[in-house]
Amino acid sequence: MKLHLDRSLKTPLYLQIRSQIRQLILANELPPGYRLPPERKLAASLGVNRTTVVNAYHELTADGLIQPHVGKGTIVSPAQTVQHFLNRLSNLDHSEVLGMPVQPISWQNFYTSQSERMHNPVLASILDEIGEEDQISFALGSPAGEYYPLNELNEICKEVMRPGNWKALEYGPTIGHYPLRQYLADWLSYRGINAQAQTILMTSGSQQGLDLLTKVFLEPGDYIVMEEPSFLGAIGVFKAAGAHILTIPLDEEGLRIDVLEQILSRHRPKFIYTLPTFQNPTGTTMSIGRRHELLRLAYQYHVPIVEDDPYSELYYENQPLSSLKSLDEHAHVIYLGTFSKMLFPGLRLGWCAAPLPVLEQLSLAKQHVDLHTSTTTQWIMTEFCTQGLLDKHLPLVRSQYKSQRDAMVSALTEFAPQGLSWTVPAGGYYLWCELPPGLKATALLTKAAEKKVNFVPGNAFYVNSGGKDRIRLCFCRHSETTIREGIFRLCGAVSELLNQPNHGGRILRPRFNEPLV
Amino acid sequence: MKLHLDRSLKTPLYLQIRSQIRQLILANELPPGYRLPPERKLAASLGVNRTTVVNAYHELTADGLIQPHVGKGTIVSPAQTVQHFLNRLSNLDHSEVLGMPVQPISWQNFYTSQSERMHNPVLASILDEIGEEDQISFALGSPAGEYYPLNELNEICKEVMRPGNWKALEYGPTIGHYPLRQYLADWLSYRGINAQAQTILMTSGSQQGLDLLTKVFLEPGDYIVMEEPSFLGAIGVFKAAGAHILTIPLDEEGLRIDVLEQILSRHRPKFIYTLPTFQNPTGTTMSIGRRHELLRLAYQYHVPIVEDDPYSELYYENQPLSSLKSLDEHAHVIYLGTFSKMLFPGLRLGWCAAPLPVLEQLSLAKQHVDLHTSTTTQWIMTEFCTQGLLDKHLPLVRSQYKSQRDAMVSALTEFAPQGLSWTVPAGGYYLWCELPPGLKATALLTKAAEKKVNFVPGNAFYVNSGGKDRIRLCFCRHSETTIREGIFRLCGAVSELLNQPNHGGRILRPRFNEPLV
Repeated sequence: MKLHLDRSLKTPLYLQIRSQIRQLILANELPPGYRLPPERKLAASLGVNRTTVVNAYHELTADGLIQPHVGKGTIVSPAQTVQHFLNRLSNLDHSEVLGMPVQPISWQNFYTSQSERMHNPVLASILDEIGEEDQISFALGSPAGEYYPLNELNEICKEVMRPGNWKALEYGPTIGHYPLRQYLADWLSYRGINAQAQTILMTSGSQQGLDLLTKVFLEPGDYIVMEEPSFLGAIGVFKAAGAHILTIPLDEEGLRIDVLEQILSRHRPKFIYTLPTFQNPTGTTMSIGRRHELLRLAYQYHVPIVEDDPYSELYYENQPLSSLKSLDEHAHVIYLGTFSKMLFPGLRLGWCAAPLPVLEQLSLAKQHVDLHTSTTTQWIMTEFCTQGLLDKHLPLVRSQYKSQRDAMVSALTEFAPQGLSWTVPAGGYYLWCELPPGLKATALLTKAAEKKVNFVPGNAFYVNSGGKDRIRLCFCRHSETTIREGIFRLCGAVSELLNQPNHGGRILRPRFNEPLV
Repeated sequence: MKLHLDRSLKTPLYLQIRSQIRQLILANELPPGYRLPPERKLAASLGVNRTTVVNAYHELTADGLIQPHVGKGTIVSPAQTVQHFLNRLSNLDHSEVLGMPVQPISWQNFYTSQSERMHNPVLASILDEIGEEDQISFALGSPAGEYYPLNELNEICKEVMRPGNWKALEYGPTIGHYPLRQYLADWLSYRGINAQAQTILMTSGSQQGLDLLTKVFLEPGDYIVMEEPSFLGAIGVFKAAGAHILTIPLDEEGLRIDVLEQILSRHRPKFIYTLPTFQNPTGTTMSIGRRHELLRLAYQYHVPIVEDDPYSELYYENQPLSSLKSLDEHAHVIYLGTFSKMLFPGLRLGWCAAPLPVLEQLSLAKQHVDLHTSTTTQWIMTEFCTQGLLDKHLPLVRSQYKSQRDAMVSALTEFAPQGLSWTVPAGGYYLWCELPPGLKATALLTKAAEKKVNFVPGNAFYVNSGGKDRIRLCFCRHSETTIREGIFRLCGAVSELLNQPNHGGRILRPRFNEPLV
């Protein structure tokens, strides 16, 4: 029986002896009936006081693991007694074993500061209650599922999951399925972007692209620049990373270059995050002049640009302007794309096109994060795209969403009380509305919920305290009839609040039922 | 024409004027033919020296944006000249505009220290070359696709993707698809784990569970405890987070409790990470006594346990021992599960069962990371499981993998040169081999590659410098015939190296072709 005492430990020696003998017994290295050395002898061999061993044996006896035996000194208890000890251990008897009650863990003391920063009251409204049937939601930024070509998709799934084709269910490369990256490279090239399969990383939605960029680029305290208002998912992930977010206001031509230039002359941000086309939430499109100016500043100050481009294919007037990525001649632009606003957000497929060294670093981060994006969904999307079904789907939704946008504008024109105004975007998903003076979006949210209509209050899109008098309405998810009904209800809620005394002051806790994307 | 000069900026005033007028022209606020104010007048209104305005106009004239016009002073150039300016901007002429060459971005200067720590030479071997046809790989820890019930899966996909069922392609809740979480809660309860749907979070493989835990728990410099050797994906993500990893050696009964107790008496780790059943890479199973001892220490020192349990359903002798989670009476255990080792790793579906406050924090982190795991793959897996197909599949693979394990052991017994030894695990995926004295795994990797056989060298599973004389062999992916052939080749490679002079010294750069999971 070998024991090793460590006098540098805080654990008393008798407890060290008890613990080690207990382990030997439980491991059956000291089998039932085994005769333990006499106390005095063990004490001598360990160089400890005899009382130390006496105390250890006493504890082990109390545990039932050893027992005195006439003529043999002290022996290991029979197997069933040892088993009884184990059973007690597993039956809430830990306090007995430990000699003290087991304290519950105070988990919040274990969390990182990043984790604490995730407590954004809006982002905390988890994506957990899609589609309450009786509610008209203009909150969720989701495509309309009714237009999906499900017959075609069904055929594709049958083909992908055909007997013998188990490779579609296998692990895959971190960077993504090659044929899909090749398709996207061609698709982007057609849009003026110089991309190859090896500079495209498949991500689980563009939200993951933002998270990977954060992992690779942002230390707590780093500066970044973004438009305000902007996509709340980006604000959330950058804030959680502990970044200092410098905000640039928008005008009709997109982010204010003059403000950006002032900021860049004073700070060295890790990157400029922008949604130049059909911006979320404002619907603004950055003018071509501004795009060139933005690139010029990026070059001049050596600042990378992160271009988030989920909406550019959803144009309802003219073809969209050239992306920053397509205008970029000096590899300063990291481009995020996604299928989710065109169709099938539930597949969680987005991509990042970036200069090769950045792409390699993002891939390395992604390997740590989830190994790779689902092989199966990538194979399905590859078939869908290469059969021309994406290109076929886009004109359909452009036409439908345009009608829905116009239906929402008409309804607002018809029902809106004085003081409620809105933008008419040339593409994308959203109308950005300004409430009548004094009316708060959070108060309206409560009143609207009574009337079974929903939206996102404007403050969710602000890094700081702005947007309290703004709301975002998504026009993509519902039919024109439903949109009209929803706007009727919403305008009714606005009117009711306006007719209440002190309407601006009633701020109730909002309840979000749907993903705010 | 309104200009705003900021004298606190470093940008010279004439460049500020140039820049602002240029923006006004590009934004068409100063349309073609617009007459600019005379230099002297503008200088007076701005309170600057006339030369400043002369210089600004000079620059704008050189850009082609304005031009002198007889009788009108200075006017904005015609539209096509302005367009020409824009075209030049997009044609590599930024250096001309900036008055200096554009420097490429030195990306490495932008990366986080976490990002730098991802440069693990083994993890860097990306998952990019699955299934080279002429190679027998014992490296990839992947299930055998040949046994998948693809006919049944095909029917399920047809059902999930049926016309009208577009909700299977919609955004979903961050925590996961409720029916799948409910199925898993029952499945875990059957295995003695007290779990409910609301304490289970669906993840994109258990790798994502590790990443989320890292995000929620680990600051740089935090201590964690893990077995050594252990799962390389866990080592990678913990190292990248900047954790101090305290390692515990294993014996036949699992992690050495005595060493753990010493560590806990000195450090306060954020958690203890363990793979108690059919451990990766050693195949070791922690004894029931050790499990109780581990829990006792966790309670005593208030340290959470992260139990990673991908292999326990793949037992080839007796039913597996109770999981730590099932023995845990005081909510100290966070449990990670995955479908990926049972079947369909390409779906990327794992889960985490944790005490409610932890689960909520992990969900919040996941919302920032990728919103949610694919709705589509979750619906497919739900159908698969609730139709009883998972429970039907497990006995089949247990029987097959057991035969394959035995085939590998037989082949080793037949072909192994003296000094090569191996474990025989009671479950899981791997044989853990010790090479003959002096032989290095990295040298063998090169020799084996010549013979078209592959494995993972042992050092990949060590936090520090151990494992150079070990290799991990996965027996699940190939038929018994192929296993025999692969082991024949591998043993041939070992023998050849043993017969070379200085065999231990030849360390070539290894090449990994497959995911190391």
